Amino acid sequence: MVHRIPVGVLGASGYAGRELCQLLSEHPVFDLTFATAHERRGERVTVGGRELQYLATDDAPLGAAELVFSALPHGASGPWVHRVVKEGAHAIDLSSDLRPGHSELSVPYGLTELTRPALRGASLVSNPGCYPTATLIALAPLLAEDLIVPGAMVTIDAASGVTGAGNSPKADLLFGEVTENYRAYGVGNEHRHLPEMRAMVAEYGRDLDLLFTPHLLPVARGILATLTVPVRYMPDDLLGVWRRHFANEPFVEVVSSPPQLRDVVRRNVVRISAHAVAHVRTPTVLVLAAIDNLVKGAAGQAIQNANVMLGLTETWGLPV
Amino acid sequence: MVHRIPVGVLGASGYAGRELCQLLSEHPVFDLTFATAHERRGERVTVGGRELQYLATDDAPLGAAELVFSALPHGASGPWVHRVVKEGAHAIDLSSDLRPGHSELSVPYGLTELTRPALRGASLVSNPGCYPTATLIALAPLLAEDLIVPGAMVTIDAASGVTGAGNSPKADLLFGEVTENYRAYGVGNEHRHLPEMRAMVAEYGRDLDLLFTPHLLPVARGILATLTVPVRYMPDDLLGVWRRHFANEPFVEVVSSPPQLRDVVRRNVVRISAHAVAHVRTPTVLVLAAIDNLVKGAAGQAIQNANVMLGLTETWGLPV
Amino acid sequence: MVHRIPVGVLGASGYAGRELCQLLSEHPVFDLTFATAHERRGERVTVGGRELQYLATDDAPLGAAELVFSALPHGASGPWVHRVVKEGAHAIDLSSDLRPGHSELSVPYGLTELTRPALRGASLVSNPGCYPTATLIALAPLLAEDLIVPGAMVTIDAASGVTGAGNSPKADLLFGEVTENYRAYGVGNEHRHLPEMRAMVAEYGRDLDLLFTPHLLPVARGILATLTVPVRYMPDDLLGVWRRHFANEPFVEVVSSPPQLRDVVRRNVVRISAHAVAHVRTPTVLVLAAIDNLVKGAAGQAIQNANVMLGLTETWGLPV
Amino acid sequence: MVHRIPVGVLGASGYAGRELCQLLSEHPVFDLTFATAHERRGERVTVGGRELQYLATDDAPLGAAELVFSALPHGASGPWVHRVVKEGAHAIDLSSDLRPGHSELSVPYGLTELTRPALRGASLVSNPGCYPTATLIALAPLLAEDLIVPGAMVTIDAASGVTGAGNSPKADLLFGEVTENYRAYGVGNEHRHLPEMRAMVAEYGRDLDLLFTPHLLPVARGILATLTVPVRYMPDDLLGVWRRHFANEPFVEVVSSPPQLRDVVRRNVVRISAHAVAHVRTPTVLVLAAIDNLVKGAAGQAIQNANVMLGLTETWGLPV
Repeated sequence: MVHRIPVGVLGASGYAGRELCQLLSEHPVFDLTFATAHERRGERVTVGGRELQYLATDDAPLGAAELVFSALPHGASGPWVHRVVKEGAHAIDLSSDLRPGHSELSVPYGLTELTRPALRGASLVSNPGCYPTATLIALAPLLAEDLIVPGAMVTIDAASGVTGAGNSPKADLLFGEVTENYRAYGVGNEHRHLPEMRAMVAEYGRDLDLLFTPHLLPVARGILATLTVPVRYMPDDLLGVWRRHFANEPFVEVVSSPPQLRDVVRRNVVRISAHAVAHVRTPTVLVLAAIDNLVKGAAGQAIQNANVMLGLTETWGLPV
Repeated sequence: MVHRIPVGVLGASGYAGRELCQLLSEHPVFDLTFATAHERRGERVTVGGRELQYLATDDAPLGAAELVFSALPHGASGPWVHRVVKEGAHAIDLSSDLRPGHSELSVPYGLTELTRPALRGASLVSNPGCYPTATLIALAPLLAEDLIVPGAMVTIDAASGVTGAGNSPKADLLFGEVTENYRAYGVGNEHRHLPEMRAMVAEYGRDLDLLFTPHLLPVARGILATLTVPVRYMPDDLLGVWRRHFANEPFVEVVSSPPQLRDVVRRNVVRISAHAVAHVRTPTVLVLAAIDNLVKGAAGQAIQNANVMLGLTETWGLPV
Repeated sequence: MVHRIPVGVLGASGYAGRELCQLLSEHPVFDLTFATAHERRGERVTVGGRELQYLATDDAPLGAAELVFSALPHGASGPWVHRVVKEGAHAIDLSSDLRPGHSELSVPYGLTELTRPALRGASLVSNPGCYPTATLIALAPLLAEDLIVPGAMVTIDAASGVTGAGNSPKADLLFGEVTENYRAYGVGNEHRHLPEMRAMVAEYGRDLDLLFTPHLLPVARGILATLTVPVRYMPDDLLGVWRRHFANEPFVEVVSSPPQLRDVVRRNVVRISAHAVAHVRTPTVLVLAAIDNLVKGAAGQAIQNANVMLGLTETWGLPV
Repeated sequence: MVHRIPVGVLGASGYAGRELCQLLSEHPVFDLTFATAHERRGERVTVGGRELQYLATDDAPLGAAELVFSALPHGASGPWVHRVVKEGAHAIDLSSDLRPGHSELSVPYGLTELTRPALRGASLVSNPGCYPTATLIALAPLLAEDLIVPGAMVTIDAASGVTGAGNSPKADLLFGEVTENYRAYGVGNEHRHLPEMRAMVAEYGRDLDLLFTPHLLPVARGILATLTVPVRYMPDDLLGVWRRHFANEPFVEVVSSPPQLRDVVRRNVVRISAHAVAHVRTPTVLVLAAIDNLVKGAAGQAIQNANVMLGLTETWGLPV
């Protein structure tokens, strides 16, 4: 008989929190024991066919869970996951509070495919941002094989669906403002996701200039990152670099045609293609990476990390 | 009393052709005299409140017009506009047939703001592609002031609405395939629009490597181009570079916030912002340019060029 | 020389208020003199190429205008338009406050095509709701010719774009909630627009049971109303009933194919088709009517009414 | 050990066929053995993680399957399913060819919840249309309890996503034509789905006039049907009529708030609400029913029927 594992979710009514609850309802051994949603406390919702009542954050019975996911807002989440760990449970923080570059603490960073060894048995894991997930998995083989021109500028043009911005009502996220529209945002500035990207590049011992520009798409879900990477030389079998690197990864799809959002939506995968750019003189690789920002970019990867932390089968409960 | 000018449209049933007919119906001196749509010949349509019957291309009374616009497909258009000119009328070719890099002939290139002197009095003008319109107007001030690092790679990530791909029925342009989707296309390859971009850069006497990646947006209209440009130094008043260059241009809007598609849709404008990228070490400028691909990127600019060719007021008949 | 007329807009930052300011900027004799937007007071915006600063409602120089439009919220608007009239200016109220069935006062109801004589010279007009505009113009010829079975139930299934619900941030109007969705709302209940529909039916001396069900469409603009009307007999020339009734109306389009939202968006028209239903035994007419909820359903009709009130040409400043 | 059942799909590349293959890949005992797609024969596709090569229809190894689904076009499908049955396999026809009112044959009609006894052990079943599925399940309790006014007209206003129209490229289904649009179609005429609706009403021994008007929504998937039903009297517990009737149905959800498309997308359910209309004099019930046109409206219900035909657990392989 399988051991059931009670889990809790803090911040369950946002897009990532709802996705978490939904995915947990299909997990073979996790039992969702509590879910908090402070502003909607007391409200009853149905998740995966089961009724659930949102608790106030303070009423969360932390001790009743072996594992707690926090999808609380940035700033609020960090203290709560530390409290969870003190109570003796495992914790996964989906906020940016404990990510590399945001915290002095050295909390394992859960970009599963790249950091798996550090996650096994960990009591606390910091779950990556959605943009870094797509970007870093796309870059990892080039970083590992030292193919990028040292010191080069890598441009990362990325476009995300609106659920990446959360479900608090904001005028500029109304349907009437987003439909038939497209725009860059946070232009030229330091995006909250840059420090974790830089930290991982440094982990590989590389020195790069990352130019990151996010855009808002009129779609609900999905991120497509378009990366331009100057390389030292063009490998004969370019796609082979990714195929070899991710040969045994169940959640990385290396493909020859450009990935589309609809290839990845509602799936816990990163889908990647890489192309030698024939029309420029400098040897340059175009890498395209698509994910569902709520699944591989948030809730799905959190569950993937939980599986690794607890020594379970990594693919359990995850849609491929 | 104002002299009325009879004009004709070849290829009037595609998206650009329909936009042309619509705009022409609001022009103060142009009178739409005939419109061809070979496969829909004989069909009656209402444009701007007036009824119109599509002719077969061969039945076009070329001699009856003083000016003919051709929105025929690439390949078919070139021979027709030459025939128009032989008949003694002015012609504007919206296809790529006569654009720089596509033709041996040196036909004036109608990127109005950059090539105006060559258009005055011309009998034949080649209308630019939609992507080059946004890209080249965005780059022009940097090219003119020699601010770009010589030989540098400029990345142009651009996203376009589906009308840029025309209205022939193709399975991958069905609503069911495009909604909630986003993808790059033609990746790594030489896009039909690259030669005209390179030719204009050369006109300014500059040497650059242009890396162009187009994407398909789930919107009907609009292009946003995101350009990354390594500069020799960062000007104190960065936006001033564009403001000065386009000080007297009625159709160029230089703005401090990133332009959005909805700022430009159904308008004959290019809207541009430029930003010093604070988070990279190399001095780099991010330029964003938005246009309506059917207006400033096609039919609107064609009318703008027609106004210049014939010595009319340049803004006549154009929505701002 | 044309006499210029100074006008003001109360509540200028909502969707209807913005549309009003935009349309006014293209009106041949109206000059937008002030615009209030209480919560955004002090903010500068560009409308129709002109810069404008929003005022607090209390700071509106009512006396400086000959005509004031109020797009203030229901409840707040009524008192303000009375104040305007006391100041000696004409007023048009776009809220429901003074509409038939909402107010004891008998303020002229500005469904222009049906109530024109009452509007000429009026100092105060109540502008109709968007749903009643589409519905009543669709029904008017049948009401006038007494073709509907007395006492019959007329079903009005209507679908509206999201701008009908305003631009206050509400969670259920976020892009992520509306895209790829469709739903009825206010089901079975008395909708705010029912009293004015009933009042106009009574004006024609008819007795009908109106069953009205609104739905929310994933589009920004547009209303399509689908009406099922039991008739006493089926006229030989069904469409002729509408064609005759609206023979001289510049803003009513009677067509043989079902109207689509895209036929009417950004235009001040009602587009109507009528069909004998062949597959039922009771003689029944299906009437379809499409409008742009912000133009003919709000701001456009308000300007149309203003033109009539002041004795100007009715079509001035209105997009057809 | 579970007995595996080899199945085949004819017409696997349309929207319904693709959905079938996808769902079959998750079925616990069905093994997809072959899939035909005549125009794409030879093409390799990945379904549910498995690679599959499309066959020409004539190359389908009918004898290799115990069960064959046909998603071939109307007209072509009927002869093929008869061939399947002759070969000794069970067959389910998703086309309209064998539905009540279309065929002289009396083939069991697979509206599972309403016709289950006739499906058990059947060798051939005709799968319902998408609109009739939503409509008839919504009406069934009222029909069964004889609550509808005899001879009354029931209006069925329904709106469907574009996948209901298939994935053959048609100009009026291009993204550029459907986005921000909404329209009725087939207005006033006899829709292909009406005969099966009438036939089922007659099965209940009732006499009604069904007025059906379909509309095209700018969404990929989903149908919402809005029904207006004159009733003999208003039951005290209106919703109870549906709750009792469908008490043990796993795929019918009776709810108090109006169902939305997003409640049902990618799920094999019908979600229904019913409301007494307070604002009309005649006792009238508004029934709203939502389904995913490709799941409960096509492929999902086909698998549900297959489960019943073969005596398997009815819910196997179906997303709830």
